[in-house]
Amino acid sequence: MGYQEFTIEGRNAVIEAYRAGKPIDKIYVLDGCQDGPIATIKREAKKHDTLVKFVTKERLDQMSETGKHQGVIAVVAAYEYAEVEDILEAARQKNEPPFLFLLDNIEDPHNLGAIIRTANLAGAHGVIIPKNRAVGLTATVARTSAGALNFTPVAKVTNMAKTIEDLKKEGMWFVCADMGGTTMYQLDLRGPIGVVIGNEGDGVGRLVKEKCDMIASIPMKGDIDSLNASVAAGILAYEVVRQRLNG
Amino acid sequence: MGYQEFTIEGRNAVIEAYRAGKPIDKIYVLDGCQDGPIATIKREAKKHDTLVKFVTKERLDQMSETGKHQGVIAVVAAYEYAEVEDILEAARQKNEPPFLFLLDNIEDPHNLGAIIRTANLAGAHGVIIPKNRAVGLTATVARTSAGALNFTPVAKVTNMAKTIEDLKKEGMWFVCADMGGTTMYQLDLRGPIGVVIGNEGDGVGRLVKEKCDMIASIPMKGDIDSLNASVAAGILAYEVVRQRLNG
Repeated sequence: MGYQEFTIEGRNAVIEAYRAGKPIDKIYVLDGCQDGPIATIKREAKKHDTLVKFVTKERLDQMSETGKHQGVIAVVAAYEYAEVEDILEAARQKNEPPFLFLLDNIEDPHNLGAIIRTANLAGAHGVIIPKNRAVGLTATVARTSAGALNFTPVAKVTNMAKTIEDLKKEGMWFVCADMGGTTMYQLDLRGPIGVVIGNEGDGVGRLVKEKCDMIASIPMKGDIDSLNASVAAGILAYEVVRQRLNG
Repeated sequence: MGYQEFTIEGRNAVIEAYRAGKPIDKIYVLDGCQDGPIATIKREAKKHDTLVKFVTKERLDQMSETGKHQGVIAVVAAYEYAEVEDILEAARQKNEPPFLFLLDNIEDPHNLGAIIRTANLAGAHGVIIPKNRAVGLTATVARTSAGALNFTPVAKVTNMAKTIEDLKKEGMWFVCADMGGTTMYQLDLRGPIGVVIGNEGDGVGRLVKEKCDMIASIPMKGDIDSLNASVAAGILAYEVVRQRLNG
């Protein structure tokens, strides 16, 4: 299986990629470049919520594999993204209350891959990641997921807090992992639930945290601050699994 | 803090390092080299259970930073190893039943670091790793442990199965994580316990598994085979934590 993410270089090639519906994660555009095709690309980028980075010619030259970037290089995800609706539909198909992972800016591709792997085995129906600032479905993520990316849908959303709000209207509950919350064993984590995992360094962002119904803390006895993000995700997710098994 | 592992090159330097009690993880010796100082080094290596690798002159030249290896390069751990007895003593000091992690050949330094981090936060008293074939306390492990290596003792043993046997005589119980075992929620994991985690690809070795009192399986609903080793260790360790909290 080819877990290769790839780049597309050149104006027409990038415009064609958008029209073909390729999952473009990011585009690098020559800073100051304003002509027609570049304007079209920026418009497409906006429409598809692609992250746009303006860079120098030297940077583009360095990234270029063909030497013919014409001021634009697009990074295409190794995997197709799903829609949030697809994830809910997967739960419906299985006749199970939805069980989702929401990742508030995981930056390390190894962590993202390990979390998708855990989501698959814990029986979660899908994973939601933010469009900006976080790592996307790169080749490293695909490899670290140990094949889980072939089965567990991953959706990318522009505004995580808004997504949570929308899903709450459909009857879902959200629990985020954070220090200073209630010990997770004391929370009722059954029913349609979204488990929110924060960034490796900063934890869950304020806006997202405010939308959560519960703050779960993993009991910690040690001398250091926090667990690895993918380990924390696994521990909290399996508390959900345990409670679901016990009915 | 300097998380640098380092190498020592040259016959006298390596002999001196042994005499000074430095934690040497591995030595590379020029294949076929038989003279007095090399014989002394091999003797010390045997006494300290250091892994000895015989390599070509080209390999040594390539590894050498000084260009003066004289046929021997030693790799020194970034951290001092503890003894198993130190770990049991730490439990006694805290007046707690011992809680140990035993890692049967974890190969990825990121996994080892994350597991030491988890061991610290789960309140385990120490981690036991095997002398051969597994990764030692390298700089990457120290960094990935997020500081836990400063607090959680790690002991290295020659024969993991024998160590388990010895610790069972002291009243400890051992549970290994493996597929086909009893669902972990149904096991009694309280009391003095060692949690055994297997190799990333092959799981727990047969000899070690035979010594375990219980085989715990983490319930898996997904489409793929297994969790990441450090995530699995975290999930099983926190089931121990949960049961200990509930008395």
